[in-house]
Amino acid sequence: MAHIDLGVDEKIFPGISGPMRYRPETAKPLNELAEVLLRAPHSLTAGERELIAAYVSGLNECRFCCSSHSAFAAAQLDEGMTLVDQVRADLDSAPVSEKLRALLRIAGAVQQSGRKVTTDMVEAARAEGATDLEIHDTVLIAAAFCMFNRYVDGLGTFAPDAPEAYAQVAERIITHGYGSSVTTGS
Amino acid sequence: MAHIDLGVDEKIFPGISGPMRYRPETAKPLNELAEVLLRAPHSLTAGERELIAAYVSGLNECRFCCSSHSAFAAAQLDEGMTLVDQVRADLDSAPVSEKLRALLRIAGAVQQSGRKVTTDMVEAARAEGATDLEIHDTVLIAAAFCMFNRYVDGLGTFAPDAPEAYAQVAERIITHGYGSSVTTGS
Repeated sequence: MAHIDLGVDEKIFPGISGPMRYRPETAKPLNELAEVLLRAPHSLTAGERELIAAYVSGLNECRFCCSSHSAFAAAQLDEGMTLVDQVRADLDSAPVSEKLRALLRIAGAVQQSGRKVTTDMVEAARAEGATDLEIHDTVLIAAAFCMFNRYVDGLGTFAPDAPEAYAQVAERIITHGYGSSVTTGS
Repeated sequence: MAHIDLGVDEKIFPGISGPMRYRPETAKPLNELAEVLLRAPHSLTAGERELIAAYVSGLNECRFCCSSHSAFAAAQLDEGMTLVDQVRADLDSAPVSEKLRALLRIAGAVQQSGRKVTTDMVEAARAEGATDLEIHDTVLIAAAFCMFNRYVDGLGTFAPDAPEAYAQVAERIITHGYGSSVTTGS
């Protein structure tokens, strides 16, 4: 049970979808931000960007967001959930490109504090071919999930156990985009 | 010097205003979110909401955001910067209403982790007259500043020393709203 009355059945609208329906005025910019950062045309694939979101959500121990974005990443990465699990278990040995590994290290620093990002981390990403825009968006994706994770857990929302629940939402997000859960349920 | 080339003179566009100009696609929803949370008509005054933003930014040790939102709060609170300083120095003894104190405690918990918000904290706020919307918005303001703070510091942006720099921006934000810095400089 969430800490406040969200006016929805949380089994039908779990996690962030309850607060999104409760407060459409804030849901609008939140969904727009997720859409630009995770789904708009980009030199990082949607799968790679969702992987950054899942990785940060795991570090924040936000079960709903981590399960959701792991499912969204898995559905858009050739290697599927195996790669998501490898990155979350041990970033150093996970079979990702060196550029993505360097960006995920920056994301991991941001999760602790913006002040943990060092010039060396940024130079390492640049040496592997990361562009300024990729570095910018990695920092902002990681920062944004430090918000989304706290929003979801700070209100004490419900997180389903069944992986199928998240896989179903993944299908809808990939087809219809962020914001579709506000009107159609999660 | 920021970690990436923001394409602006950081003395003219310090803190978040550099990344906002660098990436207008993300600046738009970020400014809309700040506008709804901090300036739209509300049962909490703009000064009270800016105080929550300043308090969380202080806990995150984000000098630019804390100085900015302390100035924005001070300019909109009868007690000015004295009250902002008292809240930041010792929330338990600061001369704020018991409702605002309870909401600031929730914001302080969110700053650590969404999972730190307890039913007792929420009940305490409700016992002092806090509404569900006020509790929701307090959680989201605190969560959003965990994003803004990490965005500003994760990119290594410049923070002016002079208090006057922040007081000047306060005047513009209060008159023109969030988003005005994107086009007119900070």
